[in-house]
Amino acid sequence: MGFNSRHDDLNTLLEPASVAIVGASDNPDKIGGRPIFYMRRHGYAGTIYPINPQRAEVQGERAWPSLDALPATPDLAIVAVAGEQAVQAVDKCAELGVSTAIVISAGFSETGSAGKALQDAMTARARAAGMRIVGPNSQGLANFGNGAIACFSTMFLEVEPADGPVAVISQSGGMSAMIYGLLRQRGIGVRHMHATGNEADVTVSELACAVLRDPQVRMVLLYLESLQDADVLARAAALARERGVPLIAVKSGRSEAGARAAASHTGAMASEDRVVDAYFEHHGILRARDPHELVRWAELSLRGPLPRGPRVVVVSNSGASCVLASDAAVEHGLQITPLADRTQQALTDRLPGYATTTNPIDITAALLSNNGLFGQVLPVIADDPAADMFLIDIPVAGRGYDVETFAADTAEFAAASGKPVAVVAWQENVAATFRARGVAVYADEQQAANAMASLYRLHQWQARDTAPRHDAEQGTPSSFDELSSPSRFLSESQSLALLSDYGLTVADYRCCTDADTAVAAWRTINAPVALKACSAQLPHKSEHGLVALRLNSEHDLREALHRQAQTLKDLNVHDATWIVARMQGGLHECALGMRHDPVFGPVIMIGSGGKYVEAMQDVALLLPPFNTEDVIRKLQGLRIGTLLTGVRGDPPADMEALAEQAVRLGQCALAANGKIASIDINPVLVRAQGQGAIALDALVELSNSSET
Amino acid sequence: MGFNSRHDDLNTLLEPASVAIVGASDNPDKIGGRPIFYMRRHGYAGTIYPINPQRAEVQGERAWPSLDALPATPDLAIVAVAGEQAVQAVDKCAELGVSTAIVISAGFSETGSAGKALQDAMTARARAAGMRIVGPNSQGLANFGNGAIACFSTMFLEVEPADGPVAVISQSGGMSAMIYGLLRQRGIGVRHMHATGNEADVTVSELACAVLRDPQVRMVLLYLESLQDADVLARAAALARERGVPLIAVKSGRSEAGARAAASHTGAMASEDRVVDAYFEHHGILRARDPHELVRWAELSLRGPLPRGPRVVVVSNSGASCVLASDAAVEHGLQITPLADRTQQALTDRLPGYATTTNPIDITAALLSNNGLFGQVLPVIADDPAADMFLIDIPVAGRGYDVETFAADTAEFAAASGKPVAVVAWQENVAATFRARGVAVYADEQQAANAMASLYRLHQWQARDTAPRHDAEQGTPSSFDELSSPSRFLSESQSLALLSDYGLTVADYRCCTDADTAVAAWRTINAPVALKACSAQLPHKSEHGLVALRLNSEHDLREALHRQAQTLKDLNVHDATWIVARMQGGLHECALGMRHDPVFGPVIMIGSGGKYVEAMQDVALLLPPFNTEDVIRKLQGLRIGTLLTGVRGDPPADMEALAEQAVRLGQCALAANGKIASIDINPVLVRAQGQGAIALDALVELSNSSET
Repeated sequence: MGFNSRHDDLNTLLEPASVAIVGASDNPDKIGGRPIFYMRRHGYAGTIYPINPQRAEVQGERAWPSLDALPATPDLAIVAVAGEQAVQAVDKCAELGVSTAIVISAGFSETGSAGKALQDAMTARARAAGMRIVGPNSQGLANFGNGAIACFSTMFLEVEPADGPVAVISQSGGMSAMIYGLLRQRGIGVRHMHATGNEADVTVSELACAVLRDPQVRMVLLYLESLQDADVLARAAALARERGVPLIAVKSGRSEAGARAAASHTGAMASEDRVVDAYFEHHGILRARDPHELVRWAELSLRGPLPRGPRVVVVSNSGASCVLASDAAVEHGLQITPLADRTQQALTDRLPGYATTTNPIDITAALLSNNGLFGQVLPVIADDPAADMFLIDIPVAGRGYDVETFAADTAEFAAASGKPVAVVAWQENVAATFRARGVAVYADEQQAANAMASLYRLHQWQARDTAPRHDAEQGTPSSFDELSSPSRFLSESQSLALLSDYGLTVADYRCCTDADTAVAAWRTINAPVALKACSAQLPHKSEHGLVALRLNSEHDLREALHRQAQTLKDLNVHDATWIVARMQGGLHECALGMRHDPVFGPVIMIGSGGKYVEAMQDVALLLPPFNTEDVIRKLQGLRIGTLLTGVRGDPPADMEALAEQAVRLGQCALAANGKIASIDINPVLVRAQGQGAIALDALVELSNSSET
Repeated sequence: MGFNSRHDDLNTLLEPASVAIVGASDNPDKIGGRPIFYMRRHGYAGTIYPINPQRAEVQGERAWPSLDALPATPDLAIVAVAGEQAVQAVDKCAELGVSTAIVISAGFSETGSAGKALQDAMTARARAAGMRIVGPNSQGLANFGNGAIACFSTMFLEVEPADGPVAVISQSGGMSAMIYGLLRQRGIGVRHMHATGNEADVTVSELACAVLRDPQVRMVLLYLESLQDADVLARAAALARERGVPLIAVKSGRSEAGARAAASHTGAMASEDRVVDAYFEHHGILRARDPHELVRWAELSLRGPLPRGPRVVVVSNSGASCVLASDAAVEHGLQITPLADRTQQALTDRLPGYATTTNPIDITAALLSNNGLFGQVLPVIADDPAADMFLIDIPVAGRGYDVETFAADTAEFAAASGKPVAVVAWQENVAATFRARGVAVYADEQQAANAMASLYRLHQWQARDTAPRHDAEQGTPSSFDELSSPSRFLSESQSLALLSDYGLTVADYRCCTDADTAVAAWRTINAPVALKACSAQLPHKSEHGLVALRLNSEHDLREALHRQAQTLKDLNVHDATWIVARMQGGLHECALGMRHDPVFGPVIMIGSGGKYVEAMQDVALLLPPFNTEDVIRKLQGLRIGTLLTGVRGDPPADMEALAEQAVRLGQCALAANGKIASIDINPVLVRAQGQGAIALDALVELSNSSET
């Protein structure tokens, strides 16, 4: 976006010494009135300059007739006037040397191409003058740390603000308000709530970097519909990781229909959604489905440490809830394992005879007659090896139950155990009692297990070694500048040669120009071979019958070559050569691929190979660089991963070698630096453990800029 | 369970003319006091007989010293005393001719084997005397239609009861109370709330049949942890279908850990969970994941008709919510399709210029300045062909918004359109305003789309033709009584013959006893053949190398047979014969299977075949009888279903023929009536459309009772 070096500027945006409001209103319910009302309510210590030619005073602050009339240049200007007036105000701000203008006014790119042109021109003038723009069509920014509430959201009237550890940054004003409201409903304080609107200039990613400089911020939550500056968000992710601050994001438009709806109001092109997933995973940004899930994850994370393992201990006063919680945990990839014998014995000593003490722990309705049961049971299980986290499920409470004591016991336990604790309680008063003690509470087991599983995933991401484990032992990798082809594609032999340069193991093949050289190649290989015509003009040769397999005599080889030559002639292809390749045996056919995404850069694909690679949909994506452990983790989530472990009497396959191929493909893709549009390697033949994996066929597609 | 003919008895349980309470307490917060308190509060018009030797009066009702002292035999007795006293009271009730005893007392099968023996003996005595038992360990039954509240739940104190169209029946008392509470939170009236506890006698299924006889009941919700009387629940489902009453159930213990937890407190064996799914689908019982989902589905269903198609129209005052709602709809299998041109034109006339009018419809923040927008927009879209249902998403409202008008307009629209309408609103006051108008409201788009998709599935189930489309043209099907085998298995030739009798197309094969007959068979077939040794003692012959493929000369055939004979001798198998079968070509290898489940009867499996059938996990289950349309619908949900349609240049495969094979296997399984434990047919070779599907290998396993 060209502003990567400038996001330090945004500090004055978040901490302005003075704020002008163009279109200031005395009515605190008008868009031009709300920010003044809020700044006064929240003790903003800087100078407020209401601009209103009609009034001497606005909401008790001295008003000014125009920007020109101001005694000093404000750090920040809020533009809350409509149409042409807004453009004029922005131009004036730029002229006066205002640092940033928040353009609340609508009627720009969201209305179509004329509005887009207006917006682009206005932004270009501002940039030329060195001014940043938030918006247009922005709900504004709010910093409850210093009372700089340059925002007109109704939500601060509906739900009382409280400063706290969370920063919310959203393209959509509605979503920023909703996330704020959901957090506050859960008793969580919010410091920053920023909405970027049309993002003519300042983006969510830049603001994420900016709020991460606020030491009070311990959690950053994003709502995105488009993402153009993946590099800036990656920098925010790195900052967050450094500071140990979880970064959780909703990126909506997951489906085609959703992406279409998003494009209709953001105008942004959509990347394939699973690439977005791979990007978030690569940078350790947890991706929530919607603002509700986002806030549920935030609550668990704010209330305690991340889960360090997948094992959940369930405690409930209802046997049915024990079952539902176990189901939910397992469905979210967590584990329910029995408690250690000594823990069970200790529980048996404390619980009535018909309670179950394995895991889940059903303390039964005995809770009704002994309100101290939680306090007696919890410390016993705190250090059990089966316990990475705790789910406490109270489906029924009310008259006769001492919920205050349950909550106090639970909070004390959560603090002492140093492990995450989630309570499930659907009754509002029960939930509120636990929340008041700082315990995370969910309406049902699915929500609790989902939050636990997601934060465990975040722990795993944080724990992984992101550096490639070792460099590929490369010869002299190709210079991508020298790549050229008469078509968009490299021929198979060029493709294989390129991959081989980057250390991938490729088929044992010879390039041949005619029947004699082909026969000579076969004699050298001294085994059955495949004969494949090879031309950059024919990327999909098998569709033309230009592949002959299992040839093992001079006669068969010459005959096959003759037939292929005839076909090539019919197809009017004159530059073809041939590949003679040793027929290979192996256990499984996998596929490797690479695509260069315009936003996210190279993306590596790995999965089931063969003819039906698309229909089988058994693939995983990774963003390079990554190491073999990352690849193996991904393979383990695929069907082919199960086969590679060796089922039905098969020996285990060489997953490590396959993973190594993927790592080297990733290195190749990074080195290509956008010069390659895609690479398809299918099949990659995987052999038994220790015997390697071989790329048998490959097709490299150059990007437009590389085409000659 | 042996009581199938008796559930009519349960009418006196739901409408007792008199209720005795053994262990009656004057304290309305004691278990023996609550039912009396509730019956008086809810105007129970029958006679209440508190049994308490210590008091002359209990909560204003005349008390009696013992059951023996009662002036008449009560219809119903609530046993709320502990231990041995409970058993004595039950015995006394049986002796006196009480119709049903609700045993609230715990300490029976849930405590282990001694408690189980006590419970079994008590139940046997009661049954012998003609008395039914609810429980033990039951929270009791409550009928708000007549005030017969034989239940001690705390929840009726926490959440005010209101009679209504819903019946809740649960094994777990806690879950019945929670479902009741969740329904009441949503403003839905509940007539029946029954908990069966240990189910020594009366089951959830029986009570489901009973409440369906109450004409006021328009919705039956179940919570199950075990299901032993699948036939009775099937009858309830048939009754519900007849009456047009949705039957929605939670069956928990979906995961192994959950099933283990359920078994630990119900003692019931678990069926494989996907068999439970197939059973519910077969009987048109919608299966919810947990009580929360159950209640969300119930709300949408009670508020309007079922969706008759998958197309959702989304309307929101936030572009972001339009995106999230589209994502949620698509993720739940629903569709977002553009509105008709004339509808879009009509919308354009009514909405501001920057609103989007395709679908989703973003009415934008203009709603703030025109509170009538909903009323203007909704009627325009009511009859659009893209609209099977409506999702109205209001992520932000509050000061300045006339939510009352939105709600009134929406309710009017819902009534007029005759299509389901769901509102998404997370703000409690906004949700409450819509609910007060009888509109279904969800906290987020995921929940709304999930409910819509589930009810659309129910509509599809109700619309399907459950009768098989035509009878298999059978010759004279085998009599299963005559089946016998020296092992648990039939040999391959016996297995194929059995399937052929039921009209399945099987391999073209000959049974041979030696090399000469094998050669003769090959000459008759006059094409390459497979030679397979055939013995009931060797069900897994390929593991022993007893399958030779693509033989097409006398020499090869004799040599292969000689090798196999040697192997058989080494394995000490002397009863073997051989199958000589024509080698078949086809497009795809599928698999068919059958398992006899002890609770649910025969279950048919269909999916991807070949060596890795288990590892691929690409199978669907169906309960017979079903027709080819049912099978094809299931195939369409599988990866193999995509391949069968013809991808990567393949012709479409004969899915119809494969489905027909499955239908006939279902008929065979039903005819076997439990005599066959399992059938594995793998591969079923599927050819191009019109060219059929052939079972190439089959293995029939007899049930224990059939083994000779």
